[in-house]
Amino acid sequence: MSTPDPTTRDRILETARRLFHEQGFHATGISTILREADVHSGSLYHFFPSKDALLIGVLELYIQLLRPAVMDHAEQAATDPIERVFALLNLYRSGLEHLDFKMGCPIGNLALEVADDQPEARRLIDQNFRNWAAVVRSWLDEASDRFSPEADREQIALFVLTVMEGAMMQARAARSLVPFDASVTQLRAYFDALSFAARTNAHAHTPPASHTPEI
Amino acid sequence: MSTPDPTTRDRILETARRLFHEQGFHATGISTILREADVHSGSLYHFFPSKDALLIGVLELYIQLLRPAVMDHAEQAATDPIERVFALLNLYRSGLEHLDFKMGCPIGNLALEVADDQPEARRLIDQNFRNWAAVVRSWLDEASDRFSPEADREQIALFVLTVMEGAMMQARAARSLVPFDASVTQLRAYFDALSFAARTNAHAHTPPASHTPEI
Repeated sequence: MSTPDPTTRDRILETARRLFHEQGFHATGISTILREADVHSGSLYHFFPSKDALLIGVLELYIQLLRPAVMDHAEQAATDPIERVFALLNLYRSGLEHLDFKMGCPIGNLALEVADDQPEARRLIDQNFRNWAAVVRSWLDEASDRFSPEADREQIALFVLTVMEGAMMQARAARSLVPFDASVTQLRAYFDALSFAARTNAHAHTPPASHTPEI
Repeated sequence: MSTPDPTTRDRILETARRLFHEQGFHATGISTILREADVHSGSLYHFFPSKDALLIGVLELYIQLLRPAVMDHAEQAATDPIERVFALLNLYRSGLEHLDFKMGCPIGNLALEVADDQPEARRLIDQNFRNWAAVVRSWLDEASDRFSPEADREQIALFVLTVMEGAMMQARAARSLVPFDASVTQLRAYFDALSFAARTNAHAHTPPASHTPEI
């Protein structure tokens, strides 16, 4: 018997990636992957000795796809670095509309479905998140003149990812863009407030003692 | 044969609730629920004719648990309405620590795992989210004097839920409180900016035209 063709591996991986996104990891049967990738089980197990190994391959694929499939589109949609943040969020909004609120963020789904029991998958999910936030951080750094020196751009980048994931989740449950748009509008208001604070040197983060909450 | 005892139903439901949270919906087998609830399949199917029916029962149970298991604790932890928002987020933070970053928000998990294919479950997940946000909204309304008239407290309540869910997700993947704390710190900064804007009547949300981003 000959070794399976390298393109077979790509086909298995792409099929598994799509099915995990469409159906979830646990709900996707190996038999469905075999059928939809049009491969025999020997080919699959040649490349991926287990379903968990396939998951690792899919998560590594997502790391490779971050730039071409996500971030490059945001950078093409806007030149201003802050607007790139909102162009990125708008890509996910378009995805919700295009897919009728199904599927959502593939990494977010896997984060909640498989992270607890599979340390290597969890590490790669975290790596996907870190890489995503690092690109956002690079945009924020380009716009550093629009933030006060005390604004923590690393935290803000993590916050943007938090808002994207939480907003996607609510929009999917509601089958509505209302919670997504509400969240992005509030994030925009926060960015405006940060920018305002940078311009006016107002101490927006330090409420006067008379207004300190009572507890 | 006698009708199964009503407390059997509660035991099945509580066991399913715990297992769905610990393992996920698809990864939990009916046989595990039967074993851990110590019931026979006849009893289970008497109350819940399918695993999907059990999921509906669990989601209805979470609606009942929102006040006693979550919101009452936040209200006991703080008297100031804005501080109740952050006490609520701190409850989830404590849960991450206590459970070693496993399990996360049970509703958020189900939102991403099952919402697409199960309309009734999706509706109940959304109802759980709406009820959660409605309590936060009621706290924001109590503190209405600390928001500008143009601040949209309904949107802000949805934003708080977005931040909680996104922050929990990142923390679980990272097995670290860093992204959770970063997100809550940024949300706090936003609340402070909203409060500052209300006090100073500054037009924090409307950057001058000269600083409008270039695209």
